[in-house]
Amino acid sequence: MTIEIGLLVFPRVRQLDLTGPYEVFASWPGARVHLIGKSRDSVASSTGLRLTPTTTYADCPRLDVICVPGGAGVNALMRDEETLAFVRARAKEARFVASVCTGALVLGAAGLLRGKRATTHWASLDLLGAFGAVPVKARVVRDGELVTGGGVTAGIDFALTMVAELAGRDAAEAIQLNFEYAPEPPFAAGSPDTARPEIVARVRAANAEVRAERERLADAARRESAGTQARQ
Amino acid sequence: MTIEIGLLVFPRVRQLDLTGPYEVFASWPGARVHLIGKSRDSVASSTGLRLTPTTTYADCPRLDVICVPGGAGVNALMRDEETLAFVRARAKEARFVASVCTGALVLGAAGLLRGKRATTHWASLDLLGAFGAVPVKARVVRDGELVTGGGVTAGIDFALTMVAELAGRDAAEAIQLNFEYAPEPPFAAGSPDTARPEIVARVRAANAEVRAERERLADAARRESAGTQARQ
Repeated sequence: MTIEIGLLVFPRVRQLDLTGPYEVFASWPGARVHLIGKSRDSVASSTGLRLTPTTTYADCPRLDVICVPGGAGVNALMRDEETLAFVRARAKEARFVASVCTGALVLGAAGLLRGKRATTHWASLDLLGAFGAVPVKARVVRDGELVTGGGVTAGIDFALTMVAELAGRDAAEAIQLNFEYAPEPPFAAGSPDTARPEIVARVRAANAEVRAERERLADAARRESAGTQARQ
Repeated sequence: MTIEIGLLVFPRVRQLDLTGPYEVFASWPGARVHLIGKSRDSVASSTGLRLTPTTTYADCPRLDVICVPGGAGVNALMRDEETLAFVRARAKEARFVASVCTGALVLGAAGLLRGKRATTHWASLDLLGAFGAVPVKARVVRDGELVTGGGVTAGIDFALTMVAELAGRDAAEAIQLNFEYAPEPPFAAGSPDTARPEIVARVRAANAEVRAERERLADAARRESAGTQARQ
């Protein structure tokens, strides 16, 4: 039985959020991996690399796993009713609903994080609460059918964890070995807890504009949720 | 001054060998990253994801860094005189000649590894000697202007090391932090030294056909080199 795995492709996606998990999933013979776009036209990722969808919202088969990667383009998706409706509908049928990095904010905007433990990129983690989630500082967080990964490179850990769940530990270990995934980061800068304060400040400054827009979107979601509760 | 970095794109490239370093390099404002194909037509990677070149062998500007990623498609490149001539010519002008994973075998076939310390994917490391290289079991190996990375995910460590070299440690650390690159591999299976023997056997069996062809290509290179020396 083939497991159907779908990854959302959209303009300004952080391509490594997508290509890391793609490579893991597509290296497992039991999976068929779909890159789902609004159309089949290729889109430019946040750093320029073009990605070509293999299917569309309309044509995508029933999915066992639906996964939303992150990137600057997430902000537009959070207000895009067509995308949110697609993610909601596919999540209902799927065995696992997943995100990498700030893709979690799209799940949040779709209302799929309420009451759930979840993670995202460290610089957006505090925003998850606005969508009713319980933010968890961890590389991969599973809460029932919801599986969320941390920032960018956490997508590889996320996907190996998923393959172990879906296909067993041997399959995941074989992929890890074939990918020579015994990482040796050259510096201890991979987390705001270990990076030098000036490096944390530099990354926050570089992301300030995207972050400010996300704060507004999170505030709007919080107000809407409070309004809904008040009316009930 | 912009640093021009070129990554080869070819049919059956292991896309993560390329997309990992791409994302690191393209996140550094000082770099312009080129995906170099024989033509501008998109190509299918070894796991199906399509990659679209941004330039061609003919149109590519002078490069400061030329990097060859790996994958099953490497076997064809090792016999492709047009590619080997392009790599040789660009290597001559470049500040750094680099590879990720089995891309090192293409550098070898181009004659660029003679007398140099180099690494590659663990399952191909013993083949480097046929091209006159000194195989080194390490994640990233630098020998003068030659920088080689190990298998697949080592491309991320390789690229961060290169950015530190080209742009300084702060730039590399900022990218590492933004990528949340504090990896937590779910298993200890990332190296043949730590993986269970049955997993190593499984991966070797899965790669046996590609490996057998590489052995023939390495043997041919060894015989040719011996013949050249005998004639001298």
